[in-house]
Amino acid sequence: MTTTNPLRDPRDKRLPRVAGPSVLVLFGVTGDLSRKKLLPAIYDLANRGLLPPGFSLVGFARRDWEHQDFRQVAYEAVKENARTPFREDVWRHLAEGMHFVPGEFSDPGAFEALAMAVKELDATRGTGGNYAFYLSIPPKFFPMVVEQLQRCGLTEHGPHSWRRVVVEKPFGHDLKSARELNATLHRVFPEESIFRIDHYLGKETVQNILAMRFANTMYEPVWNRSYIDHVQITMAEDIGIGGRAGYYDGIGAARDVIQNHLLQLLALTAMEEPTSFSAEAVRAEKAKVLSSVRLPDDLSRTTARGQYAAGWQGGERVRGYLEEDGIPPDSRTETYAAIKLEIESRRWAGVPFYLRTGKRLSRRVTEVALIFQRAPHLPFSETDTEELGQNALVMRVQPDEGITVRFGSKVPGTAMEIRDVNMDFAYGESFTEHSPEAYERLLLDVLIGDPPLFPRQEEVELSWGILDPIEEYWAEHGRPEPYKSGGYGPASADLLMARDGRAWRRL
Amino acid sequence: MTTTNPLRDPRDKRLPRVAGPSVLVLFGVTGDLSRKKLLPAIYDLANRGLLPPGFSLVGFARRDWEHQDFRQVAYEAVKENARTPFREDVWRHLAEGMHFVPGEFSDPGAFEALAMAVKELDATRGTGGNYAFYLSIPPKFFPMVVEQLQRCGLTEHGPHSWRRVVVEKPFGHDLKSARELNATLHRVFPEESIFRIDHYLGKETVQNILAMRFANTMYEPVWNRSYIDHVQITMAEDIGIGGRAGYYDGIGAARDVIQNHLLQLLALTAMEEPTSFSAEAVRAEKAKVLSSVRLPDDLSRTTARGQYAAGWQGGERVRGYLEEDGIPPDSRTETYAAIKLEIESRRWAGVPFYLRTGKRLSRRVTEVALIFQRAPHLPFSETDTEELGQNALVMRVQPDEGITVRFGSKVPGTAMEIRDVNMDFAYGESFTEHSPEAYERLLLDVLIGDPPLFPRQEEVELSWGILDPIEEYWAEHGRPEPYKSGGYGPASADLLMARDGRAWRRL
Repeated sequence: MTTTNPLRDPRDKRLPRVAGPSVLVLFGVTGDLSRKKLLPAIYDLANRGLLPPGFSLVGFARRDWEHQDFRQVAYEAVKENARTPFREDVWRHLAEGMHFVPGEFSDPGAFEALAMAVKELDATRGTGGNYAFYLSIPPKFFPMVVEQLQRCGLTEHGPHSWRRVVVEKPFGHDLKSARELNATLHRVFPEESIFRIDHYLGKETVQNILAMRFANTMYEPVWNRSYIDHVQITMAEDIGIGGRAGYYDGIGAARDVIQNHLLQLLALTAMEEPTSFSAEAVRAEKAKVLSSVRLPDDLSRTTARGQYAAGWQGGERVRGYLEEDGIPPDSRTETYAAIKLEIESRRWAGVPFYLRTGKRLSRRVTEVALIFQRAPHLPFSETDTEELGQNALVMRVQPDEGITVRFGSKVPGTAMEIRDVNMDFAYGESFTEHSPEAYERLLLDVLIGDPPLFPRQEEVELSWGILDPIEEYWAEHGRPEPYKSGGYGPASADLLMARDGRAWRRL
Repeated sequence: MTTTNPLRDPRDKRLPRVAGPSVLVLFGVTGDLSRKKLLPAIYDLANRGLLPPGFSLVGFARRDWEHQDFRQVAYEAVKENARTPFREDVWRHLAEGMHFVPGEFSDPGAFEALAMAVKELDATRGTGGNYAFYLSIPPKFFPMVVEQLQRCGLTEHGPHSWRRVVVEKPFGHDLKSARELNATLHRVFPEESIFRIDHYLGKETVQNILAMRFANTMYEPVWNRSYIDHVQITMAEDIGIGGRAGYYDGIGAARDVIQNHLLQLLALTAMEEPTSFSAEAVRAEKAKVLSSVRLPDDLSRTTARGQYAAGWQGGERVRGYLEEDGIPPDSRTETYAAIKLEIESRRWAGVPFYLRTGKRLSRRVTEVALIFQRAPHLPFSETDTEELGQNALVMRVQPDEGITVRFGSKVPGTAMEIRDVNMDFAYGESFTEHSPEAYERLLLDVLIGDPPLFPRQEEVELSWGILDPIEEYWAEHGRPEPYKSGGYGPASADLLMARDGRAWRRL
């Protein structure tokens, strides 16, 4: 089946990365993530021939389901959300390996049943005793689930099989809780078996930051303090919190986005060349960056936070954060956060990194923008360059994935007038290959046991170490500034930049 | 009229560069250049409001024409070839200032009549005694015309008026003849009154080389021997010599294109930052580059030439050069030339510049391509980068004007595979302003007296100094290699690159 797969690029001359015999156990199979991302991604992997013939998927949840009910739910999720075309034979084959175990996390009997189920799969489908446990559940249940897995012997394995555990962010809500969470997992799983998913790291454009920097000659020489004025890392959303009040309130934008996505983007942008693309080498370089991050002394002038107020978005009247269902009317949770950081290294000393994220902004965009210094001298008359800005190299993570270089070009005409223009590379136009979804990539990596794209404990803790002082400062100093939905965020964030004589890139 | 001109960009806040009172005397007004380029460019300038109200154009040729005949010829040329829309009022106004003087270059009486005509224009149209003489005639007539102009007093001027002379390439056919030509012109005109037109220098994309290099921060740091492997400068034509046998045979591709266009492109690409964009400063830097050019020792291995043979082009059978009308069957004139040069400077030492030009090639393209060294180390596995070439920055002069950056990017998929992609800037898409034709720009510069885009004597002589040894070598060593029309040039040109382990960019 794999050699004639129509979805595989025939130019791919290398051996394909395919998963070996394994069982994926999905806790929280009734949740949104499961339906929208995980189940479709598993089908897409199967459809691309990247899963082994006996691959098995076990759902675990507090539902009175038979196997057939689980398969029906999965079928609907695949039909609705899969990236690749539906093929009856692929689905049938995959569905045969789908099993359901009902139960509460507190019920030892349910885990005994789970242990029996996977052992039976080993016997009937040749899954070889290799189990990945995907904890798509609230972190408060982690200790209990991990303990249950251990109690029923599911975390023990022989010399030729493996156990892995997959957890989603948030990896704690501060350094202390992150350490506790890590301790919980480590009681049962060694660090190399823990796969923390930050789905941003599975995005093609994020991985391309490393390709772009280290496969090429022309970017690296200017990728440093001698030429770069500052860096802006943005993740803007146009939506509000939706139905996530229970998760979001008390967490806020900084913990939800900066701690993981934005600091990971910062690490990839700022890191030195790794000795290889092995997990150890890449993670080591990222950890060096994160451990070199320095917060400015005066957090009142170098951080900003906001909370969306009512406004208009997409032609529709939208509620403010405090009016959202399930949000206490006096909530101080920020839905917008901006911070300024510096990196204490020879490459970056003196180059500020500005990070911002927010909900209900004018536009959805995630990007890393390197803003260059102005040319040290312009041999042009002044009026000829008044429309010349600073050069910029923008890595567009989403949407409209690609790279933009902004630079000055001569305006057609009889004078030497210079104006900024864009040079553009669009991922979608340059490759006929389809980009796999981040979850396809990451689930496959889990099953193969290939960890470069998963943050390790050290990175998680370093990131919290950066954020904790800011959160503490904010907790002691007033409330987030209201900002209009559909706009550009709070005025204090603009002021943060203006103090440095800079401005955010227009959203 | 000028303030409401619909063709002027309303954003242009600077004072427009407009010509002052003047007469343009056109010798060779019946020729191809006049009809296709000069007359339309004059109309376009008038249409853009850049000519003074009393501007006058005097045609001089060996035809039995009245003013009205000249105006009719010009009218047809404008209707057929002008870039901007035809506007009756602009044309009528321009045509009123158009006069014709019939005569032979050898006839003193004709020049007396010319002198009377321009003086009358001074009186009736207020052209202020400012005359530009455009010699769109074969260079062999230059001495005679210049002498006649002098004899009838047309080269003398008062303290508040000016005389200028415009000559087209070829500026001689070797260093000796170029010096003689310059001496001829200098007998009557000081160097600052001589405007040598290399229309390539009027092209937006050529001028943009300087804007790109010196208005930006990100290119200059890699614009040197530390990062650039080599430079390729190409002017390929898909057409043959057409009706130009009389001019072309005995001249050939190197004298026709390399001596002027390609060496000028080389100078702009390789020069240091000028102290300003004044004519003196820019020319001084170009001259420094040209005087630093070193020819390789062994011209048999570092130059190549070819002569197009019959073949197919655009679905049509085409004749070989030796079968063209007016070409002697034993002609040794090359229609393709490639040479390798080095520039002895700190910036460029060891970086070869490969120049090539040819007729009847597969495609029409003029470009300057900087090819970067490979990254000194690739932290990728070898198979992942087998489709990764060298980074390139390509300045596309024509057609499809713009800039392309070629670099390696991650191929979408679950492995870290790298492949070359293009990032693109297209002049036509980025500016709403229309690009003036090169001749519009250059004629206006002549009338304004703004010489940065005109090669000066020193550059012309330096360029011949580079070419002369090659021409001498070729004269003593055999014949040009035949190459197939519609192809990529002679095999010896490919071999020239292959010896250095390199290859020409695909045409």
